[in-house]
Amino acid sequence: MSMGRILCAGLGPGDPELMSVKADRAIRGARHIAFFRKAGHAGQARRIVEGMLAPGSIEHAMEYPVTTEIAFDSLEYTETLARFYDLWADHLAQLAETEEVVVLCEGDPFFYGSFMHLYTRLKGRVPVEVIPGITGMSGCWTATGVPITWGDDILCVLPGTLPEARLVAQMREAEALVVMKTGRNLPKVRRALAEAGRLADAWLVERGTMADERVARLADLPEGDYPYFAIVLVHGQGRRPEIDA
Amino acid sequence: MSMGRILCAGLGPGDPELMSVKADRAIRGARHIAFFRKAGHAGQARRIVEGMLAPGSIEHAMEYPVTTEIAFDSLEYTETLARFYDLWADHLAQLAETEEVVVLCEGDPFFYGSFMHLYTRLKGRVPVEVIPGITGMSGCWTATGVPITWGDDILCVLPGTLPEARLVAQMREAEALVVMKTGRNLPKVRRALAEAGRLADAWLVERGTMADERVARLADLPEGDYPYFAIVLVHGQGRRPEIDA
Ligand SMILES: C[S@@+](CC[C@H](N)C(=O)[O-])C[C@H]1O[C@@H](n2cnc3c(N)ncnc32)[C@H](O)[C@@H]1O
Ligand SMILES: C[S@@+](CC[C@H](N)C(=O)[O-])C[C@H]1O[C@@H](n2cnc3c(N)ncnc32)[C@H](O)[C@@H]1O
Repeated sequence: MSMGRILCAGLGPGDPELMSVKADRAIRGARHIAFFRKAGHAGQARRIVEGMLAPGSIEHAMEYPVTTEIAFDSLEYTETLARFYDLWADHLAQLAETEEVVVLCEGDPFFYGSFMHLYTRLKGRVPVEVIPGITGMSGCWTATGVPITWGDDILCVLPGTLPEARLVAQMREAEALVVMKTGRNLPKVRRALAEAGRLADAWLVERGTMADERVARLADLPEGDYPYFAIVLVHGQGRRPEIDA
Repeated sequence: MSMGRILCAGLGPGDPELMSVKADRAIRGARHIAFFRKAGHAGQARRIVEGMLAPGSIEHAMEYPVTTEIAFDSLEYTETLARFYDLWADHLAQLAETEEVVVLCEGDPFFYGSFMHLYTRLKGRVPVEVIPGITGMSGCWTATGVPITWGDDILCVLPGTLPEARLVAQMREAEALVVMKTGRNLPKVRRALAEAGRLADAWLVERGTMADERVARLADLPEGDYPYFAIVLVHGQGRRPEIDA
């Protein structure tokens, strides 16, 4: 019978103070901490909890076997990743027979989070609890100083990985827009916004709530390299009670 | 010169442990606490912080002058609400000349939050800071135990107050769906989901993360009265690396 469990802690957008009280306590008390990262990098999740880990805690860095060397829609990529998640799920499940393991996840774990790939493999084998977190997008729209949705506004969240035509169609429809995973997709996202007539109202937030956060109008930014932690936003303009409106 | 300020604290979905470390500290240390509520009710925001307020703290209950007695699209409704927000903004701005006032807001303040109506009136008059929070929808999809978005999934957030035809059109398009403000709009939302062919996959989460949380398949629930704090969800089914898939 399993005595331990897996606890996935949503870390929020980046500022450690934006972690929930529950996640904060779990992380400070953890003996086993696991997190994803690219080989050769500190890893964003690990960076957020810097200074919080208990002395003697054991760190399990789950290093992605591939990043961009293989085409992401190839069978090879899918199989390599699947095997990676399988192996780590097995390893964590074994640990969780006797120990509690806290898995770190940026933002909210169930919102495009990598932990989901472990979750589907662990569910039913060991107890798994997920602590929700503040999403990266909440951190980003708060950083712009402008509310994202009012009254009857529709909010559409688009992965920047989508084909350009689908982005354009969606950008035309919804009032408020969030584009995730912009990074190397930014030139395509910019073209799609222009095509949909939304570029003038778009913002880019890089590393929202982190120490080196940057907020700018997308139209004012040069083409170039932008970080992985970047989100494009268009704010909704919906119904609001104002006497002079 | 202003010495105080307004600090709006996002409270998260309901479980006080899901508040951020920053919001938790601000609330426990506050001398002035303000929150919206319906006249005659304790108020959900106030309920979440029960037991957290410092002895001697001063509570400012901002009671809505109207709820459903007047049609929400009438000029009278708009004007009454606008005047209410104007008056409270003036009062809080005056307080904030010398004091810090913590305004409570369920979920994330900039995501369909009532605080936004004070924010637009206070900005530029006194310093205002907003602490983002875990949204109600994050609390709700975590409660279902199923991730909301994978890979290339589009997420569409729809206010249940929209006309039925617009709901149907949007429900047909996006992979993952969230319908906010279901409450008395639930019969319409249910019809729209059925029309869009999504009813069989829809969940209703009532009071997500609160003590009396309830999670169910929408199709299994009888017609009837559902609480204001209720969200309808359809999970995305997007790309995920599985060898056997
Ligand atoms: C795999 S998704 C993970 C999302 C995460 N689970 C969440 O709830 O925000 C990674 C994408 O999230 C976005 N993101 C997350 N946090 C961010 C932040 N603080 N600033 C900017 N973008 C962020 C970026 O678009 C990034 O490419
Ligand atoms: C005026 S909006 C405020 C949204 C809030 N600012 C947020 O970030 O979630 C109110 C609606 O949020 C949804 N909601 C918020 N918290 C919820 C919870 N814990 N459970 C279910 N629904 C919730 C309900 O649909 C409700 O009608």
